[in-house]
Amino acid sequence: MTLVLDPAAQDLLFREARTANTFTDAPVTDEQVQEIYDLVKYGPTSMNQQPLRMVLVRSDDARARLVRHMAEGNRKKTESAPLVALLAADNEFHKQLPTVFPHFPQAKDVFAERTVRERSAALNAALQVGYFIIGVRAAGLAAGPMTGFDADAIDKEFFPEGDRSVLAVVNIGNPGTDAWFARNPRLAYDEVVSTV
Amino acid sequence: MTLVLDPAAQDLLFREARTANTFTDAPVTDEQVQEIYDLVKYGPTSMNQQPLRMVLVRSDDARARLVRHMAEGNRKKTESAPLVALLAADNEFHKQLPTVFPHFPQAKDVFAERTVRERSAALNAALQVGYFIIGVRAAGLAAGPMTGFDADAIDKEFFPEGDRSVLAVVNIGNPGTDAWFARNPRLAYDEVVSTV
Repeated sequence: MTLVLDPAAQDLLFREARTANTFTDAPVTDEQVQEIYDLVKYGPTSMNQQPLRMVLVRSDDARARLVRHMAEGNRKKTESAPLVALLAADNEFHKQLPTVFPHFPQAKDVFAERTVRERSAALNAALQVGYFIIGVRAAGLAAGPMTGFDADAIDKEFFPEGDRSVLAVVNIGNPGTDAWFARNPRLAYDEVVSTV
Repeated sequence: MTLVLDPAAQDLLFREARTANTFTDAPVTDEQVQEIYDLVKYGPTSMNQQPLRMVLVRSDDARARLVRHMAEGNRKKTESAPLVALLAADNEFHKQLPTVFPHFPQAKDVFAERTVRERSAALNAALQVGYFIIGVRAAGLAAGPMTGFDADAIDKEFFPEGDRSVLAVVNIGNPGTDAWFARNPRLAYDEVVSTV
């Protein structure tokens, strides 16, 4: 074993971590989310653009508005998770580039076209969704990331200004009874990696 | 501090990890890449679709073919990194769904349309790029992920069958002299997270 990361950390973040479908009633606090964010914010993005935005769905009204746009099979768990987070790409991220990437003042101009921005925001916000899922696990919590929903309807409902695109909805909490299915098979190294 | 993950692991994966622009001559072996893969393969994807494919650019010829499609500012480091990996989305990932998501035999049909597949592959492969970057760091190595390149040209050059879309090119190795710039600012919690 040549990995430097402690085996217990490997288990916590990857090997024993699972997508949870049920949760206990234990709440997930804003302080926990802030600690997760303050760790994973260091994950790299193109030109440090950091396009990920998160909406914590805390009120009953907002939860109901979200649940009706989820795929049937995702509704019950989205109704009952202690915390539900909408993870979205900010398609106007370029406005902050002069602050977050100060040594290249023209960076903003690279993203003058909306389609160029959307493509970069989708890729980089998805990287950040990956970091965030790892961060939830680093906090000792289970994540239940979902992509089965009506994305256009969620965007209209929660981002009426038209500047954001939802990428994932993530249930967060402590795993409950029968929280997960048997682990599905992973592709073998030779099916994924080739050499040229 | 409520995070469960050991502080040394937090530093290794996020707080002290940096995007490297120079590397030592120490090689990165296939065994190291396999250990990284065998850890990060457990990261979750939609319907376990695992669309990420990796090409390790080992030969001088392949390296030269890649470098000429990189943005000017990325060429020198791509020429000199011990290992360069092309990370791409497999837009034909749905063919493996009967094996990797066996309890839903109709899963393949959800992705009958190419545009639906491409969108899902791009999102989920990007999640896996995020996991992979974390995995490189877990191996004690530095990653230099780049998105500044001619994606269409790389796809034609390395994926002539038209079934894959490059998402990132990642230099991998041990950090060399003056390996990184000063850390750029991260967005504050309140700029990223809101509550409804």
